[in-house]
Amino acid sequence: MIFYYAPKTIALASHIALEEAALDYEARRIDFAATEQQSRDYLGINPKGRVPALDTGQGILTETPAILAYIAQIAGDANLAPVTEPFAFARVQEFNLYLCATVHVAHAHRVRGYRWADDPRAIEAMQQRVPANMRECFRLIEDKYFEGPWVIGENYSICDPYLFTISNWLKGDGVDVQEFPRIAAHFHAMRERPEVRRVLLLHGL
Amino acid sequence: MIFYYAPKTIALASHIALEEAALDYEARRIDFAATEQQSRDYLGINPKGRVPALDTGQGILTETPAILAYIAQIAGDANLAPVTEPFAFARVQEFNLYLCATVHVAHAHRVRGYRWADDPRAIEAMQQRVPANMRECFRLIEDKYFEGPWVIGENYSICDPYLFTISNWLKGDGVDVQEFPRIAAHFHAMRERPEVRRVLLLHGL
Repeated sequence: MIFYYAPKTIALASHIALEEAALDYEARRIDFAATEQQSRDYLGINPKGRVPALDTGQGILTETPAILAYIAQIAGDANLAPVTEPFAFARVQEFNLYLCATVHVAHAHRVRGYRWADDPRAIEAMQQRVPANMRECFRLIEDKYFEGPWVIGENYSICDPYLFTISNWLKGDGVDVQEFPRIAAHFHAMRERPEVRRVLLLHGL
Repeated sequence: MIFYYAPKTIALASHIALEEAALDYEARRIDFAATEQQSRDYLGINPKGRVPALDTGQGILTETPAILAYIAQIAGDANLAPVTEPFAFARVQEFNLYLCATVHVAHAHRVRGYRWADDPRAIEAMQQRVPANMRECFRLIEDKYFEGPWVIGENYSICDPYLFTISNWLKGDGVDVQEFPRIAAHFHAMRERPEVRRVLLLHGL
């Protein structure tokens, strides 16, 4: 498999999951500084011009929650999600979907507001709301969704690298992860895992 | 099972899937005009204050792609997704994730811009970009992702009610579905299905 990533993007979550699953893959870095994600070659891999993308050999996959569920499904021994128990699996997906469609989107209004408005003052107005929105999202996760010590409880799952990746953005978004003690403990526990450390080094983090 | 929905929301997609799967469930309408989604009772069901929510008997599920995958997994006979084939299932999920995290989010900037900025001029600037963003998303789907006659090809799947639901928003977003001939044909084919007609009536559509 070939995994396309760029440092400091959401690709970190799938990258960690690939390591945790002990899958055989090659990581290829896409140079965002040179807008390589918009090059003809890369658009042939992912027409959306984004990372991550995973060339599975059967075809290419994009979208973090889909890639994470795929990794859990093909690496059954790693036990990264209860893929054959519909309700338990749906809860894992529900968590990841909230990160994807609400939390990541809230964060993106600080760094990619140009996607949703042209007026620079509008983009600035979006940036101003980001700390409050991120705080609200993490408050909900801390109070309602996070089981501990890992996201779904005793079992480490594909939810953990995803939450960790977005927790890692909080500081830049003007929010202190320590406001959320259980998520902060998770953040620090993640950083101790050898698989996570290996990937963080590659991402320059 | 109890399915919580409001008319003219993304709940339509899961509602159609429940009908297509021929599952036994009760539909309960949440009154958005009376902001029932923010009532203490409903926040006990879904702390995010949104629809849809599905009380499965084992617990409550939210987030459309998670609910759709759950329906496909428990109603195996309806063959609504290749849930045991990791790559094929991931492709289904990838499509739904694009709808969820990019297309639905693009649309939401017309009707719920207040989520991402306080300044009314910023909200107006967001609204102005919606037609262009929706057009770009549907162009990508038409050209790169839609197989036809159904989203993933010959098999009707959980992608179809989801695409249909968002296609149905295009007019309000200032885009004519006829700009995308294959998606337009899909839109009309969906409206002919008895399961879809039953649900549209309930949603007042």
